[in-house]
Amino acid sequence: MSETNGAPKKGVLERLRDGVVVGDGGFVFALEKRGYVKAGPWTPEATVEHPEAVRQLHREFVRAGADVCQTFTFYASDDKLDNRGNQANKTHTGAKINQAACDLAKEVANEGGCLVAGGISQTPTYLSGKGKEAVQAEFRKQIKIFIANNIDFLLAEYYEHVEEVEWAIEVLKETGKPVAANMCIGPEGDMHGVSAGECAVRMARAGADIVGINCHFDPFVCLEGMRKMKAALDKADLHPYLMVQPLAFMTPDASKQGFIDLPEFPFALEPRICSRWEIMKFAREAYEIGIRYIGGCCGFEPYHIRAVSEELSKERGGFLPEGSQKHDQWGLGLRLHTKPWVRARARREYWENLKPASGRPFSSSCSKPDNWGVTAGHDMLKQKTDATTEDEIKQLAAK
Amino acid sequence: MSETNGAPKKGVLERLRDGVVVGDGGFVFALEKRGYVKAGPWTPEATVEHPEAVRQLHREFVRAGADVCQTFTFYASDDKLDNRGNQANKTHTGAKINQAACDLAKEVANEGGCLVAGGISQTPTYLSGKGKEAVQAEFRKQIKIFIANNIDFLLAEYYEHVEEVEWAIEVLKETGKPVAANMCIGPEGDMHGVSAGECAVRMARAGADIVGINCHFDPFVCLEGMRKMKAALDKADLHPYLMVQPLAFMTPDASKQGFIDLPEFPFALEPRICSRWEIMKFAREAYEIGIRYIGGCCGFEPYHIRAVSEELSKERGGFLPEGSQKHDQWGLGLRLHTKPWVRARARREYWENLKPASGRPFSSSCSKPDNWGVTAGHDMLKQKTDATTEDEIKQLAAK
Amino acid sequence: MSETNGAPKKGVLERLRDGVVVGDGGFVFALEKRGYVKAGPWTPEATVEHPEAVRQLHREFVRAGADVCQTFTFYASDDKLDNRGNQANKTHTGAKINQAACDLAKEVANEGGCLVAGGISQTPTYLSGKGKEAVQAEFRKQIKIFIANNIDFLLAEYYEHVEEVEWAIEVLKETGKPVAANMCIGPEGDMHGVSAGECAVRMARAGADIVGINCHFDPFVCLEGMRKMKAALDKADLHPYLMVQPLAFMTPDASKQGFIDLPEFPFALEPRICSRWEIMKFAREAYEIGIRYIGGCCGFEPYHIRAVSEELSKERGGFLPEGSQKHDQWGLGLRLHTKPWVRARARREYWENLKPASGRPFSSSCSKPDNWGVTAGHDMLKQKTDATTEDEIKQLAAK
Amino acid sequence: MSETNGAPKKGVLERLRDGVVVGDGGFVFALEKRGYVKAGPWTPEATVEHPEAVRQLHREFVRAGADVCQTFTFYASDDKLDNRGNQANKTHTGAKINQAACDLAKEVANEGGCLVAGGISQTPTYLSGKGKEAVQAEFRKQIKIFIANNIDFLLAEYYEHVEEVEWAIEVLKETGKPVAANMCIGPEGDMHGVSAGECAVRMARAGADIVGINCHFDPFVCLEGMRKMKAALDKADLHPYLMVQPLAFMTPDASKQGFIDLPEFPFALEPRICSRWEIMKFAREAYEIGIRYIGGCCGFEPYHIRAVSEELSKERGGFLPEGSQKHDQWGLGLRLHTKPWVRARARREYWENLKPASGRPFSSSCSKPDNWGVTAGHDMLKQKTDATTEDEIKQLAAK
Repeated sequence: MSETNGAPKKGVLERLRDGVVVGDGGFVFALEKRGYVKAGPWTPEATVEHPEAVRQLHREFVRAGADVCQTFTFYASDDKLDNRGNQANKTHTGAKINQAACDLAKEVANEGGCLVAGGISQTPTYLSGKGKEAVQAEFRKQIKIFIANNIDFLLAEYYEHVEEVEWAIEVLKETGKPVAANMCIGPEGDMHGVSAGECAVRMARAGADIVGINCHFDPFVCLEGMRKMKAALDKADLHPYLMVQPLAFMTPDASKQGFIDLPEFPFALEPRICSRWEIMKFAREAYEIGIRYIGGCCGFEPYHIRAVSEELSKERGGFLPEGSQKHDQWGLGLRLHTKPWVRARARREYWENLKPASGRPFSSSCSKPDNWGVTAGHDMLKQKTDATTEDEIKQLAAK
Repeated sequence: MSETNGAPKKGVLERLRDGVVVGDGGFVFALEKRGYVKAGPWTPEATVEHPEAVRQLHREFVRAGADVCQTFTFYASDDKLDNRGNQANKTHTGAKINQAACDLAKEVANEGGCLVAGGISQTPTYLSGKGKEAVQAEFRKQIKIFIANNIDFLLAEYYEHVEEVEWAIEVLKETGKPVAANMCIGPEGDMHGVSAGECAVRMARAGADIVGINCHFDPFVCLEGMRKMKAALDKADLHPYLMVQPLAFMTPDASKQGFIDLPEFPFALEPRICSRWEIMKFAREAYEIGIRYIGGCCGFEPYHIRAVSEELSKERGGFLPEGSQKHDQWGLGLRLHTKPWVRARARREYWENLKPASGRPFSSSCSKPDNWGVTAGHDMLKQKTDATTEDEIKQLAAK
Repeated sequence: MSETNGAPKKGVLERLRDGVVVGDGGFVFALEKRGYVKAGPWTPEATVEHPEAVRQLHREFVRAGADVCQTFTFYASDDKLDNRGNQANKTHTGAKINQAACDLAKEVANEGGCLVAGGISQTPTYLSGKGKEAVQAEFRKQIKIFIANNIDFLLAEYYEHVEEVEWAIEVLKETGKPVAANMCIGPEGDMHGVSAGECAVRMARAGADIVGINCHFDPFVCLEGMRKMKAALDKADLHPYLMVQPLAFMTPDASKQGFIDLPEFPFALEPRICSRWEIMKFAREAYEIGIRYIGGCCGFEPYHIRAVSEELSKERGGFLPEGSQKHDQWGLGLRLHTKPWVRARARREYWENLKPASGRPFSSSCSKPDNWGVTAGHDMLKQKTDATTEDEIKQLAAK
Repeated sequence: MSETNGAPKKGVLERLRDGVVVGDGGFVFALEKRGYVKAGPWTPEATVEHPEAVRQLHREFVRAGADVCQTFTFYASDDKLDNRGNQANKTHTGAKINQAACDLAKEVANEGGCLVAGGISQTPTYLSGKGKEAVQAEFRKQIKIFIANNIDFLLAEYYEHVEEVEWAIEVLKETGKPVAANMCIGPEGDMHGVSAGECAVRMARAGADIVGINCHFDPFVCLEGMRKMKAALDKADLHPYLMVQPLAFMTPDASKQGFIDLPEFPFALEPRICSRWEIMKFAREAYEIGIRYIGGCCGFEPYHIRAVSEELSKERGGFLPEGSQKHDQWGLGLRLHTKPWVRARARREYWENLKPASGRPFSSSCSKPDNWGVTAGHDMLKQKTDATTEDEIKQLAAK
């Protein structure tokens, strides 16, 4: 177990037993906006190419009150690093990218007494229908590095198919580390028609200590899914810890596959970004459901994590994170504003009740999601080393 | 003059004469979200307290293609640092804060061949009606430090009253450096009823080499103001360079005083954040009007500045910034995406025509601005060292 | 049986067996806007006070292609005519009001070869918890008049509780006339928690020949409810004819009790009014589900009924109603418009795909419904002869 | 002069001098929805074909408090009746249509002590550029009938070009009757670039006793235009009575040519329909500007006119129209409603402050108007007897 200042760090399961664990936020969207990650392949090689940028973002989440630094290893399996024209595996190797991610997460976690979580996610190998052995082989390559770095616990996240996450949990359990497992599903369940409740039960039965949902849906839709998971787990008399790390984008109009299907994904999601007040509401509701690991995924910036920390300050023994030194709660910092009508906004009921306008009179409030009804095994989803051609795009656009 | 690799840097006026200068983005909003700045006083002491965070943001803007690093000295005049309960002047002194800002801007600018601009902005002293001498004394304290650091040019920005910016320009001109001057006004002109055109003429007559608008309004509303400025300057046969650094928040519903009056300011502006495509459209329109200094203010994140750089790449001799290595233009990076319907979005016409939904069916598209019709000299706007009390907030809230 | 031109009219069940029956539209909202009916008590005494206005509306629906004239006897039970300050029973007597309604419906139906349906609806007596006998006594008073006038069939509509509609059907069946029964419920079922499917099964088992939904929800939400009804009926091997008469107001945001709970009810529903194109889409979907009696309720104006008739023209043997002489389908009449860009709208794909803007930038697209969770038997719902006092309104407003 | 009960009716100018004149509402849109008028040519031959429907609508407006019955003679000039495939002139003759309109307006006006106004409007002859003599010849044919019927005053309305309305006024003045003149323009002025203020001055100088705006824009945009008219008239020391008859559709997004350019015109304007509360606000503002003739145009249903009457009841000596017997002011009729939360809406502040939702999450709040920038004289606007062909529509659609 990692140590800070000589004293052994309390593990994730003990922390969950005793209180709330605040997760960190999303790396790929934040680093894309900062200029270090490419949307589409969501290039995890930033850990090698620009460690200072990844380190700074880790620090900001820790300042915001996160208890965990997740290694920035999303989509960093070798098969993904080689997919559709990406060449990161050739240039850097997956091993080097994953090692750099461990270095950065550990460095910052150690500064702040945080835990390090090593994360794996769904693979093109699974979507291409190559079977259990091939898929687990991909997972093992990343996990080997996590174990060599003695990270604190393991996380399988962003799985659309319960079968694949079961395979992942199986491999993660071999390590003896605590295992968390999250699917990127909504209340309707996984891509193969397995209900959200059944997914939770299967993850718990596969051995996950912590079970939940991440990404793909907004905070409140994710909580709807979590309620279904909890009900099914309770019914099955299974009691893993519950975890949720939603988008910080409002997606009431997303269908089964979430925000990826929305026409705004990924380059025009701005009007959907959650305010800090919406995140505080989410944190409170999540806690009331009984969820104890509460963090964020794509769209969660440091101030969103700070909002979680502030909302659950009492539940965390009065703890306020460093970042709150620059954030008087409920807008009280506005008491220092020049304009008197802005000073009048320095109060909780103002922000709690505001329905923020979009400033976009030519936009609608909801979109019809794209959804071509293709899922694992379908030809269009198969792994492919070559880049997509212009002709292929034209054909897709004409659909 | 600063130097890079032995060769003298080309000055701002020469760059404007020969092509386009891309400005950087907004520091206070970006650093508030990252946890280093408090909304309300917009605490510039971050330069002293967290230089690594300020440095990182400078770097991101340079990677995004900015030609200029503005010192992070907004609201860093001594009078402001002491206003309404803020104590930064006591803790750090304005001098130290301004010096640290120069150090950080110069460090990063030198890495990237960029210019350093020393910025001053409107003062509580002016709003409190203390007269020209007192106001100019505030300006001189900041300017002294800029000159000691031999920054490349000076910028007076965020002025609501043309009178105050004239006083600022007068002081800046004493230094012999090139002078840029921006007011935070819209097409309706300044707070005392001076038209936008007249404001431009007065700034030019006061000696500003570069004249324009920053903050308070969205890109397209700012350009409306710029069109009025240009028309009035042309009519007066005055030909300063034109500059614009708008918000990256859509504000079609703001009235004379801009986004500050909108109920969402400053903690629920998310749905108004501009997409990169909106910023590209802005950059093109700005260039076509004849504006040659194009940057951003509050809300402009690094990817917004990158959008300006990409849109004007041809005009800058084919130059694409470092940050564009992680950004295929017009969404082409989506050709690597797993889902075929997302690959279908890898084309210009898709993003150019999208009207992004808000995901907020309970929000309207526009807000009625607050606006209490008080301006410079009014009692409620006067400088005040003490913090606002809870009773005062209650009285304001009841208005 | 009534006759037209000597030949006996084909009955409603035969018409349904052989094809489509188009119902008429809503009287209370249309006549309120024309100045003859008061919102709240929805005063059916208009049949006595202004027969020319009721007759004209009947005629417009027949011109629009309706096969049925419903007697304007909604809320014309004696107990309702005496409720909460209404005095119509004293002034006119329920008997006279119902007789006048029969006269008007028969007069116009005979002009156009239409059927007359005698309609009853839910009673304050039921909401006040006065029991089966008292409720059925109310029904019998209206039915007696329908039978004396030998109307063609009977319709129990606008029931929120399946128990009350069962009592109604029982009484209607005593007459030997064909019986239609409609509840004003959505996909969530009745106010006592009985599912939509179960409601349909119970109405069919009680003896209704025609079963369905009217009022309270928009066309597409009603069809969702109808799909559930059909599935449950099929499963129970019950095969009554299906009928739907929805609102012509869009209510995606309504909860269990429908549009009454929406803040806009009843005086600010304008932005929710369906276009003719939305109604055509509804008529097509309803037909495809297998519904054969398709009409409208509140908000349905004559042009909405014409839209149903035009959409189902082929299914009705090529029949186009008289009103279509003044309505070229799919906007083709615009070929005669002066402005060329309006002539460009003279085509189906234009209107079919248009998402009409609200012209209301300060309005949201959805509302949070009021819903106090009180239902039959609750004190606040009890019948009360006296008018509500100002104090009572103040107390309600403060909730 | 017509008489009621033996006493001579007070003329329109005397009524305006002494108080407020309430106009009637729009016939073409209301009768289109009722099934008697075709959108596009807006077939005025309804007066001959279905007098009972036109008479009923007249009666409803009188019940709603209208002081004037306008003859339903919009677009009833011979040249319009023959335009683009319309054949009404051949079938019925313009003379017969206009005579029937006079009969109906007089019949109902006499029942209610109202005035009859004979109305003419812009002509295809003018748009085709055929010159003053030809245009005035068209006007004279209609006016001749009005005079033969001794109507009370004359109204030239719905003119887009001030030149044409001047020609109209010239002809109307020959009759010796009081003359009202309205243009269908907004604050930007007429189609040839003449400002709204200048248009008003020219109408007054041409001899109009009553000057104003009708149609094309929403109530509040029309009032903006009226403010400009009043300012210019005051400046020119001209003092005609002021008149306004706006749309009952919200059009904040319409450009110079008004609602015709909006994509929703004319078959999907429903979400833009004004509520009664918006009309009351309009009536109050109109009165405060000094406008004394206040009515409505397209979209104004009887209940909208009733709202004008109720709002100005005090100014009309406490008069409430017959239709108000079925309309307790400010929603007070809801005190009789069954549901307690609907009874809670029985108060003024509730309705006055409600921003009604659209129920349309896939619609935006504003539209970009079509506007091809063609005006009088342009080939595409020329009169044409033949119907538009399908090919011509295809060509227009492709623009």
